[in-house]
Amino acid sequence: MPYVNIKITREGQVTPEQKARLIKGVTDLLADVLHKNPATTVVVIDEVPLENWGLGGDPILVAREKRKK
Amino acid sequence: MPYVNIKITREGQVTPEQKARLIKGVTDLLADVLHKNPATTVVVIDEVPLENWGLGGDPILVAREKRKK
Amino acid sequence: MPYVNIKITREGQVTPEQKARLIKGVTDLLADVLHKNPATTVVVIDEVPLENWGLGGDPILVAREKRKK
Amino acid sequence: MPYVNIKITREGQVTPEQKARLIKGVTDLLADVLHKNPATTVVVIDEVPLENWGLGGDPILVAREKRKK
Amino acid sequence: MPYVNIKITREGQVTPEQKARLIKGVTDLLADVLHKNPATTVVVIDEVPLENWGLGGDPILVAREKRKK
Amino acid sequence: MPYVNIKITREGQVTPEQKARLIKGVTDLLADVLHKNPATTVVVIDEVPLENWGLGGDPILVAREKRKK
Repeated sequence: MPYVNIKITREGQVTPEQKARLIKGVTDLLADVLHKNPATTVVVIDEVPLENWGLGGDPILVAREKRKK
Repeated sequence: MPYVNIKITREGQVTPEQKARLIKGVTDLLADVLHKNPATTVVVIDEVPLENWGLGGDPILVAREKRKK
Repeated sequence: MPYVNIKITREGQVTPEQKARLIKGVTDLLADVLHKNPATTVVVIDEVPLENWGLGGDPILVAREKRKK
Repeated sequence: MPYVNIKITREGQVTPEQKARLIKGVTDLLADVLHKNPATTVVVIDEVPLENWGLGGDPILVAREKRKK
Repeated sequence: MPYVNIKITREGQVTPEQKARLIKGVTDLLADVLHKNPATTVVVIDEVPLENWGLGGDPILVAREKRKK
Repeated sequence: MPYVNIKITREGQVTPEQKARLIKGVTDLLADVLHKNPATTVVVIDEVPLENWGLGGDPILVAREKRKK
């Protein structure tokens, strides 16, 4: 019955298989740790354009460059 | 003044008219049940790609197939 | 299969019966308009403290006072 | 850098240790499947009062009773 | 460490520079008011199609027309 | 018309005045950068218990201790 929302940046190639692993992994985790019923666990993945994601006051691409230095 | 977020899968043909009915229906519901002011009720509809929606540990299309059996 | 999140301010007396009406009303609406399966429709209601809700740049209680004038 | 929001009902005894396992499990999953940097992965757990959670058009406690039958 | 989600309609031309200003502005605000660490503040901007945004029981474009009158 | 959700940990003393500054600051920012109408800008602040917030795979208090070292 839990609801899980995963937000990641839209970049590289996130395949349907990888998304399926995220869905299964999170659902199993909630069943293992809290005995939540997998049948009604809902997972929604949001892919966010890079320029719409900020970290440390900068767009994420700028933030990554700064962290490399 | 309420804020409502409706998440559905992006599939079939959800028309602007259907979206308008959702917006009106939810706004009316909150006015009827809780006397919330319709003028400041905000509704946001998110359409999520099918492969990004999980149910029962599977992507939704796989989950639907299993439920048919 | 839809997921709906309703955010309202925590005030007055929202009874379990009213919450049940919101849950039923939204679930029926999605079945009527988009033929969504009610069995897997999830509704989550969040009640937000008044001082944590802003409208028009003011906390909601201040905003309401201004609108009365 | 991902952000994950886990919504569960507030019931039983979810201990800090269980919450820590959810946080670690989700963070590891995103590192394993998508090579996301664990250092900036944020996880937020929301515990929702039972009467505020709906499934199948009913409050969750009613929904569970019906499913038992 | 805060997480901020900004939802706006997708319209006009929101440039990467404007998004960067939103990210910086919100991050600075949280540092100024609450002394939150900017390094781990996450901001996510969602751009919502116009027909998916409702206000006052109408899609936003209809709502704007009514307010002009 | 924008909707902004700010999630912070529940700790220390966040006063109503500080919350009002967040509400005003975000609303002004959206008016300045994107000319959004302040009258219909909604801001919701969520205060999350410390043990429900994870960063870097740890509950936030553990994460902070590690970062000090």
